[in-house]
Amino acid sequence: MKHLLVIGIGAGNPDYVTVQAIEAMNRADVFFVMDKGVAKEKLIALRKHIVERFVTDRDYRIVQATSPERRRDESDADYRTAVDELNRDKQQIYERLISDELQDGEVGAFLVWGDPSLYDSTIRILDAIRAQGNHTFAFDVIPGISSVQALAARHRIPLNRIGKSIEITNARGIADGFPAGVDTVVVMLDAKHTYKRLAHEALEIFWGAYVGTPDEILISGPLRDVMDEIERVRDEARRTHGWIMDTYLLRRRDTE
Amino acid sequence: MKHLLVIGIGAGNPDYVTVQAIEAMNRADVFFVMDKGVAKEKLIALRKHIVERFVTDRDYRIVQATSPERRRDESDADYRTAVDELNRDKQQIYERLISDELQDGEVGAFLVWGDPSLYDSTIRILDAIRAQGNHTFAFDVIPGISSVQALAARHRIPLNRIGKSIEITNARGIADGFPAGVDTVVVMLDAKHTYKRLAHEALEIFWGAYVGTPDEILISGPLRDVMDEIERVRDEARRTHGWIMDTYLLRRRDTE
Ligand SMILES: C[S@@+](CC[C@H](N)C(=O)[O-])C[C@H]1O[C@@H](n2cnc3c(N)ncnc32)[C@H](O)[C@@H]1O
Ligand SMILES: C[S@@+](CC[C@H](N)C(=O)[O-])C[C@H]1O[C@@H](n2cnc3c(N)ncnc32)[C@H](O)[C@@H]1O
Repeated sequence: MKHLLVIGIGAGNPDYVTVQAIEAMNRADVFFVMDKGVAKEKLIALRKHIVERFVTDRDYRIVQATSPERRRDESDADYRTAVDELNRDKQQIYERLISDELQDGEVGAFLVWGDPSLYDSTIRILDAIRAQGNHTFAFDVIPGISSVQALAARHRIPLNRIGKSIEITNARGIADGFPAGVDTVVVMLDAKHTYKRLAHEALEIFWGAYVGTPDEILISGPLRDVMDEIERVRDEARRTHGWIMDTYLLRRRDTE
Repeated sequence: MKHLLVIGIGAGNPDYVTVQAIEAMNRADVFFVMDKGVAKEKLIALRKHIVERFVTDRDYRIVQATSPERRRDESDADYRTAVDELNRDKQQIYERLISDELQDGEVGAFLVWGDPSLYDSTIRILDAIRAQGNHTFAFDVIPGISSVQALAARHRIPLNRIGKSIEITNARGIADGFPAGVDTVVVMLDAKHTYKRLAHEALEIFWGAYVGTPDEILISGPLRDVMDEIERVRDEARRTHGWIMDTYLLRRRDTE
């Protein structure tokens, strides 16, 4: 039997790593390091740094694989197709890693940015491979600090209002307005300043880029007052670094 | 100047503690241990265990305070009033702790169950005390693994469907039906088996009690098929332990 560990390493600060994740890393024979896009080198380096810093008990191998990237499309149908294709490609890569790079009785680890349960495909891909039946393996999931929590912590705010609900979504989730039934929404994966579409609503924004890293930038305030600043700072940061990771929380101003 | 640290310790497994939380605990002169209700002793013991296990560098004091408990009411208006009163009472206790139990130049730490940003009042109370202006202090927030993430990790599921949104709410959030605009909802703080009201919808449930602890119970399946089992197991566990902490995720069965 092969064993896989899907280990959340936190979203930014290497100190977000949990004791459980450290123990899991010290059980691994192989680390599969997947990355993609322009942020690739930086994020691979960070994973290797985490492995070097925390794995003290044993020898291990690192296997690096390039993850295919998603085409950027507009419509929901295209988005779905693009993601499906992407996941098929990814699945093939993961199957190859599991069959060729991991021996029976060994433990392989995927180091996932943030928390593996949030906008990450590793669990889904492993499920799909198991469902297909060509590969037998067990897997466990180790939770990690997500970018949503890092954002809230660094802004020193609660995610939810007293007794209220929150929604976690991507840019599509606010493209048609502030979601119904919640008074806080957290937006990830927004490459297009979608918050600007909500300028007519009475909202506060808490924005953060590279949260938890030395490059962290935080901006907050009434959406209308700070949205142009966020746009300017974001565009500039992306030019400087060549890539950006940012998340923001929007909440209604009139409910508390 | 006094300094406060709001430290998330994770929701269940002491190994959920992060390296950042351990470092923060090792900066604290005083630990404020707040707890309430029947789960009190167990949860206070767990916090003390965490402090003993991880604080190695220095001497510290532990100050225990009893947190007032919320009246259980039905209507939203009553709920709001009850929570407001509760927070006023809590605020007074926190003010006393900060003024009487912490010296200038010292660091005080609140150990928060799970993540401080999720259904926890510590940050809100500290903000309220600062806004009032009678006490000067700085504070930082250290994120922790929430029960939502622990639940997803132990069930080995992602929280969100590909490109879809999730809502995190309490029992009230699903009392009138499955929320609009999302296909996954995570419910916390439900003392009344509210999921049963959604039996007519095509939903899957992933339920967990005492997640991450040695008493963990996990049940999952189509809501209609497993809801009676969950009710029975939950009632029984609550009788056995005298208290229960449980959370569940509901997702539409027809969308993926
Ligand atoms: C594919 S998702 C992965 C999320 C990850 N699993 C987590 O738990 O945070 C990538 C998105 O997460 C957000 N993100 C990740 N790390 C971040 C950071 N350090 N600062 C701000 N946003 C971040 C951004 O919105 C980015 O587009
Ligand atoms: C006042 S909230 C605090 C949540 C906490 N801040 C967190 O991040 O998980 C308490 C609720 O969290 C959920 N909860 C906390 N710990 C849990 C555990 N170990 N297993 C299941 N549910 C838990 C339950 O729904 C409980 O009613």
